[in-house]
Amino acid sequence: MKARVIVTLKSAVLDPQGKAIEGALRSLGVAGVQSVRQGKVFDVELAGNDRAAAEGALKEACDKLLANTVIETYKVEFAE
Amino acid sequence: MKARVIVTLKSAVLDPQGKAIEGALRSLGVAGVQSVRQGKVFDVELAGNDRAAAEGALKEACDKLLANTVIETYKVEFAE
Repeated sequence: MKARVIVTLKSAVLDPQGKAIEGALRSLGVAGVQSVRQGKVFDVELAGNDRAAAEGALKEACDKLLANTVIETYKVEFAE
Repeated sequence: MKARVIVTLKSAVLDPQGKAIEGALRSLGVAGVQSVRQGKVFDVELAGNDRAAAEGALKEACDKLLANTVIETYKVEFAE
């Protein structure tokens, strides 16, 4: 079973890395970019086909390791 | 106009960072994780509502800065 976890900074948290990318795109002449925020993505392969168990395992993985829930939020998507 | 760019390593490319996460999850006791691959996500806000122009700008941004197309692939998703 394949899942994708997307971890992004909460909107209230400043993102200097995103700001730097924004500035770099501007100086490269890429038109129309107003803002950039960066996050992380994890493509996870899980054993078995039990979706509820997979969701539980991924929630645990995010809370323990993948995301800093003080400043980040995460979203889990399953490949159909 | 909001778009999300997801940059991932090509499947033929080794991902030591993903392997490290996989090992860490195993030692934390998270069950059922078979493999992890890490990538990057960029949430981009673009001026205007011209989707074709936005796609062009994002392709340029990816090729010039966001992705290393030798080892990475990217996918652009638009928020509806």
